Amino acid sequence: MTSFEDLPIRDDLRGLTPYGAPQQPVRVAINVNENPHQVPEVVARRIIEAIARELPGLNRYPDREFTALREQLSVYLGHDISPEQVWAANGSNEIMQQLLQVFGGPGRSVLSFTPSYSMYPLLTQGVGSTWVPVPRADDFTLTAELVTEAIEREQPDITIICSPNNPTGTATDLSVIAAAYEATDGILIVDEAYAEFLPDGEETALSLLPGRERLVVSRTMSKAFAFAGARVGYFAADPAVVDAVRLVRLPYHLSAITQAAATAALECSQIMLQQVDAIREQRDRLVRELPALGFTPWESGANFVLFGGVDDPAGTFSRLLERDILVRDVGIPNTLRVTAGTRAETTTFLDALAEITNAGKA
Amino acid sequence: MTSFEDLPIRDDLRGLTPYGAPQQPVRVAINVNENPHQVPEVVARRIIEAIARELPGLNRYPDREFTALREQLSVYLGHDISPEQVWAANGSNEIMQQLLQVFGGPGRSVLSFTPSYSMYPLLTQGVGSTWVPVPRADDFTLTAELVTEAIEREQPDITIICSPNNPTGTATDLSVIAAAYEATDGILIVDEAYAEFLPDGEETALSLLPGRERLVVSRTMSKAFAFAGARVGYFAADPAVVDAVRLVRLPYHLSAITQAAATAALECSQIMLQQVDAIREQRDRLVRELPALGFTPWESGANFVLFGGVDDPAGTFSRLLERDILVRDVGIPNTLRVTAGTRAETTTFLDALAEITNAGKA
Repeated sequence: MTSFEDLPIRDDLRGLTPYGAPQQPVRVAINVNENPHQVPEVVARRIIEAIARELPGLNRYPDREFTALREQLSVYLGHDISPEQVWAANGSNEIMQQLLQVFGGPGRSVLSFTPSYSMYPLLTQGVGSTWVPVPRADDFTLTAELVTEAIEREQPDITIICSPNNPTGTATDLSVIAAAYEATDGILIVDEAYAEFLPDGEETALSLLPGRERLVVSRTMSKAFAFAGARVGYFAADPAVVDAVRLVRLPYHLSAITQAAATAALECSQIMLQQVDAIREQRDRLVRELPALGFTPWESGANFVLFGGVDDPAGTFSRLLERDILVRDVGIPNTLRVTAGTRAETTTFLDALAEITNAGKA
Repeated sequence: MTSFEDLPIRDDLRGLTPYGAPQQPVRVAINVNENPHQVPEVVARRIIEAIARELPGLNRYPDREFTALREQLSVYLGHDISPEQVWAANGSNEIMQQLLQVFGGPGRSVLSFTPSYSMYPLLTQGVGSTWVPVPRADDFTLTAELVTEAIEREQPDITIICSPNNPTGTATDLSVIAAAYEATDGILIVDEAYAEFLPDGEETALSLLPGRERLVVSRTMSKAFAFAGARVGYFAADPAVVDAVRLVRLPYHLSAITQAAATAALECSQIMLQQVDAIREQRDRLVRELPALGFTPWESGANFVLFGGVDDPAGTFSRLLERDILVRDVGIPNTLRVTAGTRAETTTFLDALAEITNAGKA
């Protein structure tokens, strides 16, 4: 039997293994930062109606400019962002890939502050750019000094700041984002996949867009919008960035069905987002209750919590899985990451963790 | 106002313009080789039901391996092709991009026989590879001698043969495909986007797959399946090729909605494909009737016809557009390309062309 290693694949891909968060049916899946709440029935009905209107005409190519979707995204984002400033793709991974293709590519470099989202280095390699990881401070925070020093030293073509940061939950202050922008002549991407889970009143990097034509704020409908299965990521930036991305996007990359589904979901954004408070509550509960079990959670502005003090992450992961609970070992020593689930899921997780911890001490 | 040329885009993208077949509402759109027949109502209903079942669970990521869809694709393709040999993506452009990413990339080369599909050079540039166009014979056919000589001379990492070829309609004999495979150590992609429109009984490159682990046959649901708006391309190959593509595909690239829609459509493939005969009839009619108007159509195995003898393609294009008929000027001197529409659309087109031609002579 032929193996893919026998095929003439790119030399720099040899020995790699594909991205692979486990997909297995468990009772409590709190491993990939999904929203635990299903799409509300009233919204599901609106979405189905919108798709049904598109169905007969699927023999035609979709609107390459997804005009209606961009209008709804601009309404949702506010901050005086116009449809010309908005772009969407099949998940924020495709958004990142398009940005890295047009502003990166062979011979260029992409810098981010690690630990961060595990797809960044893979996407960077995919477009033939050099990956430049710069460690965050010990508590995973970023300061203006740290980012400025790193950017001036490395002169990256693209800088990515994930805020709130996956997998640590760390939010980055807007003054730090502004400092990073000042330090670079390249593109600065702020990945705000989890922005809707920030504490109330916290500003997002969207407010920094005016006058900063090299700043891109990336978002997703996968998390707060409970729309991971629909694959819709997007960004807001200067209209010139949107024009640039048109050079590399695949024509008709967004299906008519995806456009209709996302547009309908955005029209119901108040209903779609009504579970965000409940999720933040469970996140705050995790941060509050984990210390009593002997763990050290980091502050989180996202829908998940990274916690330290785990003597044996692989062992704890397995013992949770034995109880049908799937969390994530992100490879940071002595930590695990857990998504804020429903109240019941969070209770199940905390109870199981207490049980495992006590058994370990017995 | 900032222009994208003011931004730090990749140097080799400077001066380019995005892919842009015009999207404008016209009475007779026969410019992008769409299927003119809407999705049949009975199939539309099945698709809607399938999507409705997915809707509540969209808060979860989709099946990364799109198992059900791959099973249906293998059933549809026949030729003893197993689900492990099948891969799908958001349109055949994404299929090509993934193949070019894993088998091409910076420092590698992609050869095709031109004129051919206009996206090949753009996709090649997108992954940082070198584009090697090799002219077809004057009548746009390919011989074993021509392809072997070119491949042995250029030693490409990837060779693409589009058959039936866009925009010329030319089908390539399987003996030529086999010869091309023998001549290369690289990957051979046969782009069969239009294969369902081949004359009855004509074999496709699927029959060449056994024992050829570097051969990839690419397909799409956009054309024969009347599913352009749903964005579903796919390929069949050795399972090792599928494994290789997993190294570069974006995780969860196919939405749960796309998977459900495509699976349901494939379950109804007999109904979905029932208009293929009608389309072939109109294609054959175009080839038969265009000479009487003074034009020289090429034989076509696809759902479109390229015809020569056009003194002023831009002028004829405009005069057709004045009559609300949109065809395609693909840039081959003295030609235009026209999609086989419904019987009525084809009549409208031929009548208008006759009128324009007679007016020109008057």
